[in-house]
Amino acid sequence: MKALVYQGPAKKDWIEKDKPAIDKPTDAIVRITRTTICGTDLHILKGDVPAVTEGRTLGHEGVGIVESVGDAVANFKPGDAVLISCVTSCGKCPNCKRQLYAHCSDGGWILGHLIDGTQAEYVRIPHADNSLYPIPEGADEEALVMLSDIMPTGFEIGVLAGRVKPGDTMAIVGAGPIGMATLLTAQFYSPGRIIMIDTDPNRLEVARQFGATETLQVGVDDVIARIMEMTDGQGVDVAVEAVGVPATFDTCQKIVSAGGNIANVGVHGKPVELHIEELWIKNINISMGLVCTNTTPMLLKTLQSGKVDPARLITHRFSLDRILDAYEVFGNAAREKAMKVILTA
Amino acid sequence: MKALVYQGPAKKDWIEKDKPAIDKPTDAIVRITRTTICGTDLHILKGDVPAVTEGRTLGHEGVGIVESVGDAVANFKPGDAVLISCVTSCGKCPNCKRQLYAHCSDGGWILGHLIDGTQAEYVRIPHADNSLYPIPEGADEEALVMLSDIMPTGFEIGVLAGRVKPGDTMAIVGAGPIGMATLLTAQFYSPGRIIMIDTDPNRLEVARQFGATETLQVGVDDVIARIMEMTDGQGVDVAVEAVGVPATFDTCQKIVSAGGNIANVGVHGKPVELHIEELWIKNINISMGLVCTNTTPMLLKTLQSGKVDPARLITHRFSLDRILDAYEVFGNAAREKAMKVILTA
Repeated sequence: MKALVYQGPAKKDWIEKDKPAIDKPTDAIVRITRTTICGTDLHILKGDVPAVTEGRTLGHEGVGIVESVGDAVANFKPGDAVLISCVTSCGKCPNCKRQLYAHCSDGGWILGHLIDGTQAEYVRIPHADNSLYPIPEGADEEALVMLSDIMPTGFEIGVLAGRVKPGDTMAIVGAGPIGMATLLTAQFYSPGRIIMIDTDPNRLEVARQFGATETLQVGVDDVIARIMEMTDGQGVDVAVEAVGVPATFDTCQKIVSAGGNIANVGVHGKPVELHIEELWIKNINISMGLVCTNTTPMLLKTLQSGKVDPARLITHRFSLDRILDAYEVFGNAAREKAMKVILTA
Repeated sequence: MKALVYQGPAKKDWIEKDKPAIDKPTDAIVRITRTTICGTDLHILKGDVPAVTEGRTLGHEGVGIVESVGDAVANFKPGDAVLISCVTSCGKCPNCKRQLYAHCSDGGWILGHLIDGTQAEYVRIPHADNSLYPIPEGADEEALVMLSDIMPTGFEIGVLAGRVKPGDTMAIVGAGPIGMATLLTAQFYSPGRIIMIDTDPNRLEVARQFGATETLQVGVDDVIARIMEMTDGQGVDVAVEAVGVPATFDTCQKIVSAGGNIANVGVHGKPVELHIEELWIKNINISMGLVCTNTTPMLLKTLQSGKVDPARLITHRFSLDRILDAYEVFGNAAREKAMKVILTA
C-alpha cells in the first residue's frame, strides 16, 4: 500500500509500505476512504515532536471501511463504515474509566505518533471497540473527518473546559482550524458575543460567516485596549488560546475578567510567564489538555440534527495520492486561504 | 478609641484615633470583642500593598457587638453579636449577584486596606446587611474569628476551586494558617490522602494532628521524587499552593497528575513560569482567587454541627491592648510556634 511517511525533520514521502496486519485481538484494520492533515503533522515535520521516528506513517484523522478485525473486537465487523478517533482508548484502564481517554495507559494520542497513522491506504487501529465509531447512515463523510480530532478538541478543550455559558462574552485568540472548531461548537451554549482575534483578515471574514459577532485583527487593532473598551473595562468571561505561543497566552491573561476562564487549546513548545501577581486575586481558572474524544457520540448527534456543519471548515480537496500537494497547500495556509483539506482515496 | 495604625513600611503603632461614625445608611458600627492578625497584615507592613496608606487602621477579621446602624440596615440592630467578613459586599452589583463578592463594585477586600479595619476598639462596616453574619447562640467566639477570612479562604480557594473529591490524593504545599485551614476543610469531602509539605517540622507535626495522612519536610525530603514514589508515578489529584512564591507554585506544577487540579491560594508578588510546554497535554486545571466568603453560612453550620473545630488554629492569646506584642509573636511564627493569635478586647 501507499503511505505518507515521516523521513526525519522537514522530510516526508508518499511511498510503498507493507499493509498493516492484525497484531492483537483487539485490533481492526481499516481501509481509509478519507483523511486530512492536522497542524500537529506540520509540527512533527518541523522536528518538534521527537517521539515520532523516521519511517512513521503520519495522520490521526479519517474515516474508512473495516477490512478485518481481531478475535476480541465485538462492536465492528468487516464492511462497517467507521470514524477513526485521534485518541486510542482501551476502555479498561483507570484513566479510561473516568473518560480521560487522552491518558489511556495503552493508548492516548498514538496514531501517526507512536504507531503508524491514517495518511495511508490502510491503518491498524488498536482497541477498535473503543477507538472507532460507527458512521450514521447518510452522514456526510467529509464532515465526519472533522470529528476525528478538530471538532472534539475545540469543543472539549475550548468550550467545555472554558465553561462557556449562555450570554457569555468570549474571545478566541487564533482563527485557525482549532479556533474555528471552538467557534462553531461554542454556539451550542449560546454565548452572547464571540470575539475572534487573528492576524489574517481572510480568516476573520470566515469567522464572521461562522458566527463570530466581532473580530479584531492583530497588528491593526490594539487588541487588549479594544477588548477592554468593548467590555466596559471588565474583560471577557472566557478567553480561548488557540495558537500555542507565549504571545497569545499572554493576550488571554490580559483580557480575562474577574471570575472568568482561560481555556488553553494550543499546543505549546515553550513555557509562558503567568502573571499570577495580578491574577491571583481575580478568581479565574486556567484549563489545558489533550482532547479525550469522550464527546464524539454527542458531536455525532449534533451533526445528525444539523446543529453544526463541520464541513464548513473544509477549503481544499485532493485525491489521497496527491497528499504531497495537499501538504504544500496546508503548509501555506494563509497564502492559500486554506483551513482543512480533505484527501479522498 | 485605640487602633493599630499603619505608619508606613515597617512602622505601626497602637494609638488614639477618632471613633468611627455612621457615614452611609447601609453602615454599621461594631465594637470589636475579638480580632486577629493575618499574614496579609505582615505583607502590608513590609510595604508590599501600596494601596494601604499611612494612618490606616489594619485588620479584616473579627467578631463584635453592633453599636449602631444606619437607616437602611435591616438585618442587624444595636446589641447584636456579629461575625465580620473580611470581604465587604453590597449584594446588588452584578458581581455580588453571582456571589463573586470579592469583586463587589463597592466592596471586596477593603477593611484594613482601603478603609479602616478591625484591629481597633470600633470599626465601621459598610453594607452591613451583606458583610456581617449573626453569631449563633453558644458559639465559640474565638473559633468564629477564624471564619472571617482564613477558613473560607482555605475552603473556597483551596478545597472547592481545587475540586477535592472523596478518595482523592491531595498535597498542600505550605502548612501555615491558610494551608491548615485548607487541611481542615478538605476533610469535609473525604480525600483519601492529604500530604502536607513545609519546611517546619513543628508545623508538620501539627498538620498530622489536624488530619494530614503524610508529611514531607522541604530541605530534608526530596519532595517531588517522594510524591511520585507515593503515587506510583502519577502525581496528586489536587495540589494546593498555600505560600505565594514561585518555588511552591513550581512544586505544584511538578506533582499534579493528568486530569488533576492546582488550586493556588497563596498571594503572589511576582510572576511564575508556567510549564505549559509540559502541562498543555495533561488535562489539568489551575484556579486562583480571593475569597468571596459566600460559604460563610455553610461554614457556620459545620462549626455548629461539630464537623470542624477552627479554634485548633489558635496558638496564642493576648488582650487587644497588647497587639504590638501579638504582632511580635505572629511575625516570628516559626520561632514562636505560632499559628493564629487571638486578641480580646
